[in-house]
Amino acid sequence: MTGKKKSAQASVEAMYRVFTVPEAPESTLSRIDQNISRNLAGFLQEHIVAVERDLSEVEKDFSDYAIPEKPVFVSEQAQFLLDKLVANSVHTASPSFIGHMTSALPYFMLPLSKIMIALNQNLVKTETSKAFTPMERQVLGMIHRLVYEQDGAFYRKWMHDPRFALGAMCSGGTVANLTALWVARNRAFPAEGSFRGIHQEGLFRALRYYGYEGAAILVSRRGHYSLRKAADVLGLGREFLIPVDTDDDNRIQTDALRDKCLELQKQKIKIMAICGIAGTTETGNVDPLDAMADIAREFGAHFHVDAAWGGPTLFSRTYRSLLRGIEQADSVTFDAHKQLYVPMGVGLVVFRDPSLASAVEHHAQYIIRKGSRDLGSTTLEGSRPGMSMLIHSGLKILAREGYEILIDQGIDKAQTFADLINVQPDFELITKPELNILTYRYCPEDVQQALALADELQTEKLNACLNRITKFVQKTQRERGKAFVSRTRLEPARYFHYPCIVFRVVLANPLTTREILEDILAEQRELATTEEGVQDEINILHQMASAVLKQHQPDARQA
Amino acid sequence: MTGKKKSAQASVEAMYRVFTVPEAPESTLSRIDQNISRNLAGFLQEHIVAVERDLSEVEKDFSDYAIPEKPVFVSEQAQFLLDKLVANSVHTASPSFIGHMTSALPYFMLPLSKIMIALNQNLVKTETSKAFTPMERQVLGMIHRLVYEQDGAFYRKWMHDPRFALGAMCSGGTVANLTALWVARNRAFPAEGSFRGIHQEGLFRALRYYGYEGAAILVSRRGHYSLRKAADVLGLGREFLIPVDTDDDNRIQTDALRDKCLELQKQKIKIMAICGIAGTTETGNVDPLDAMADIAREFGAHFHVDAAWGGPTLFSRTYRSLLRGIEQADSVTFDAHKQLYVPMGVGLVVFRDPSLASAVEHHAQYIIRKGSRDLGSTTLEGSRPGMSMLIHSGLKILAREGYEILIDQGIDKAQTFADLINVQPDFELITKPELNILTYRYCPEDVQQALALADELQTEKLNACLNRITKFVQKTQRERGKAFVSRTRLEPARYFHYPCIVFRVVLANPLTTREILEDILAEQRELATTEEGVQDEINILHQMASAVLKQHQPDARQA
Repeated sequence: MTGKKKSAQASVEAMYRVFTVPEAPESTLSRIDQNISRNLAGFLQEHIVAVERDLSEVEKDFSDYAIPEKPVFVSEQAQFLLDKLVANSVHTASPSFIGHMTSALPYFMLPLSKIMIALNQNLVKTETSKAFTPMERQVLGMIHRLVYEQDGAFYRKWMHDPRFALGAMCSGGTVANLTALWVARNRAFPAEGSFRGIHQEGLFRALRYYGYEGAAILVSRRGHYSLRKAADVLGLGREFLIPVDTDDDNRIQTDALRDKCLELQKQKIKIMAICGIAGTTETGNVDPLDAMADIAREFGAHFHVDAAWGGPTLFSRTYRSLLRGIEQADSVTFDAHKQLYVPMGVGLVVFRDPSLASAVEHHAQYIIRKGSRDLGSTTLEGSRPGMSMLIHSGLKILAREGYEILIDQGIDKAQTFADLINVQPDFELITKPELNILTYRYCPEDVQQALALADELQTEKLNACLNRITKFVQKTQRERGKAFVSRTRLEPARYFHYPCIVFRVVLANPLTTREILEDILAEQRELATTEEGVQDEINILHQMASAVLKQHQPDARQA
Repeated sequence: MTGKKKSAQASVEAMYRVFTVPEAPESTLSRIDQNISRNLAGFLQEHIVAVERDLSEVEKDFSDYAIPEKPVFVSEQAQFLLDKLVANSVHTASPSFIGHMTSALPYFMLPLSKIMIALNQNLVKTETSKAFTPMERQVLGMIHRLVYEQDGAFYRKWMHDPRFALGAMCSGGTVANLTALWVARNRAFPAEGSFRGIHQEGLFRALRYYGYEGAAILVSRRGHYSLRKAADVLGLGREFLIPVDTDDDNRIQTDALRDKCLELQKQKIKIMAICGIAGTTETGNVDPLDAMADIAREFGAHFHVDAAWGGPTLFSRTYRSLLRGIEQADSVTFDAHKQLYVPMGVGLVVFRDPSLASAVEHHAQYIIRKGSRDLGSTTLEGSRPGMSMLIHSGLKILAREGYEILIDQGIDKAQTFADLINVQPDFELITKPELNILTYRYCPEDVQQALALADELQTEKLNACLNRITKFVQKTQRERGKAFVSRTRLEPARYFHYPCIVFRVVLANPLTTREILEDILAEQRELATTEEGVQDEINILHQMASAVLKQHQPDARQA
């Protein structure tokens, strides 16, 4: 053998080895693996660097644009990942990371995920998933029953019927919402007479055939941005995602909804779907689903409920009633990687009527053939991993009771936090919690008094200044790395709908304690009152407040 | 404390435990975990039952429709999964599972996946992904360079520029194709004059404004079904996914493509996109991308290449040229869970022009704000897991050389298998391999001779009979569990385009040997010649063949 041939042979053998020889138990990667199994919290604590490195710094470690020619050792890559990637990750499982909807995972999810990945099933068809297909159908059935509470006969009839699907599993809430609205759109313009249906002929001919000028989806101003994206993808156009005003509690105004429907009807715009929200992303409020269902029926619209966040509230006997009316929805979105505590990457939509999914049914010759049990015939995605195994395990191991505890403690904790904020003179609760989400901001007592008296222009100026402070505090707290709250922009009615930047808090991690919440407030206060970068703003704020208060003093008013 | 309170307290504590106490090392789940780390092949071999259980039997284990009220022990669920789910899974990593595009995984993918899941990052925004965002941008850059081969200055300029994205990561090829066509659609009908763009106003007004009667996507008849699905989702309608005839090698006929474009143009249908295929799903052929790029340019259409399967052929110095012209594509789909050997659930699309993705850009108040680095502003999905870490590791650990070996051995093996089939008198190669996919069927020698002479009606009858046999053999082989090939339906020109059911083989598993391929043929022959359920068909087949041959014998012809 020549030298060149020998080296080629060696490369081929190295290649076979990665497919046949497991990592040695003492290798870097195996040690990490064992370390995570034995002590996940310790691993994350030890390896994630708390203090934020600037992203443009981090980018330098990921600046090679050429795929390396020669293999690097597994151990080398493992060490690189530890030092450069893991170290600069976000500690989403931390009990003081309460800014987004990603929380800690139950320990058992890790080894279960390994089984799932080791099996590498593909749920698009039974030929690559076998038992995973009935298991996924069962999971869809269980969530369907959680929402719709049909009787045993219903599930015995439909759950495993290959011609139907009680829902569709997907990568997350966005695809779930898109799938639901795709179904809604296709059902709104079915085949009739010479028209072969919108799925065949498209939106242009559908509107022309049915005599409409457009097709709209209505949702409150607090609707998730994925709905606007869906309106774009589905060809309706983002302007046909019609935002409806909310009341002071961020719930849709049903009168305004009905008026908007009447107005659209007059404009010959088809009311394609009405979306209720069960847990708004920013404030955690639940729309009056019952009343919305009535309006949807009145206008012959598909009624979809986006319960990506709040769906699991149905597990709680105490709070289930907050979602009253959800059982009237034609479709409901759930995110499993949110309050089902499953790792990132899985959501689902369930359909009240098992025949609904047929509106988006498709087939191919080599898979998802007609009559097959293949789940891929009614999903937006094709190849999909067996994530439903993790939902299945969560539903069995935590059970209704376990999820109820998680939900109840989250909502109760949000109430505790709201109470805590309310007793601080220098913090202002912006939206009080209905589920486990609330918003607030740092706002000194004199500024709060001034805001109560201020006219529209003064309110704007005070809030503009508060906005800069809130933004600064949120960013600086994140960079310090001890705690994380997110921020968003709301338009409170009491401030003439001026856009206010607020801290947003999501309380889903069962390990978040009252003490942690107190510490978060203390750090925010400290940042606002001592950090140099914001003291000019703080001074201006107090001056403005003082001016407003002076103007409204009894003698000032008499003048 | 009352008994009820005590039990409630115990439940709460149990709930905290699953978030804080790792599985004990001797628990069922830990043992499985270690077992998989030490010996994945053995675990799969031992736990997956080879012989197929009927799915309606399996369904009985997944027939509960009620979410259990009380938690079950983790060990109990682990045992249930082993016995009922794992046992009845598909051994996709088996070297004799050559029917679909899911193959074995390199060992290092398993512990790496565990790190990914333990970190539970969310790539929609940097606030929940930090270093994962630059890492994903790097992966997109590397794949972009593999396809487009731009120079260093290009990647230094664009790869980490927060205002642009060289591509979009997603859950798989279907969403990648959909994303590319969404971009194509929005670019075809941009804002102009009084029109605010299709993303805002929708397809109906877009066509009306630009004076079209429809918008079409053109692709060969061998195009993946996800493209038809995309035409539906995007509101074009499935009929506007225009299939173009292929030549005898399953490649698009460019003359037919051009004619179709002219015809559509006359009908005032906008040529929105032309899709080339780099590795057809059923036969592994590559369209003449160069010529297609010219036609796309001629008609001002977006040129998309679906390289979900064949993209990694670019790693091979020997076979890279098969994809000549791909660098002219506006967008290219790659599936990472196919020939990048990453676990199920990740694909991506790259865009030649970094500004393309802006056609689908969207923002929200609490994340993906304007100016942020958040990758979520140009992806179809919202929350997404850190799967790009696994692609990153594959590209580093296997490197170009490693992937080249995998690609080369697959293509070479397909040629070997084709040769093997060609020397069997009773097997017929239907499509010869270009990449690592081929199709064939069991077809006795006399039947092959008869088919060579048969007229159209006789051909139909012979093929109809062969179809039943192929279907039977494929199903029975799968049920026996020693090996798996898939089946599909093709319309070979030599058989008057009569739909023929064929075995379909995908040779991506590096552990598949020539011996395994020989065994697969031997088992198929055995099934066809001895299995009782098909002998009537076999007899009929031989009689039909004999009749055809007799008719064409010299004396018969003279008669």
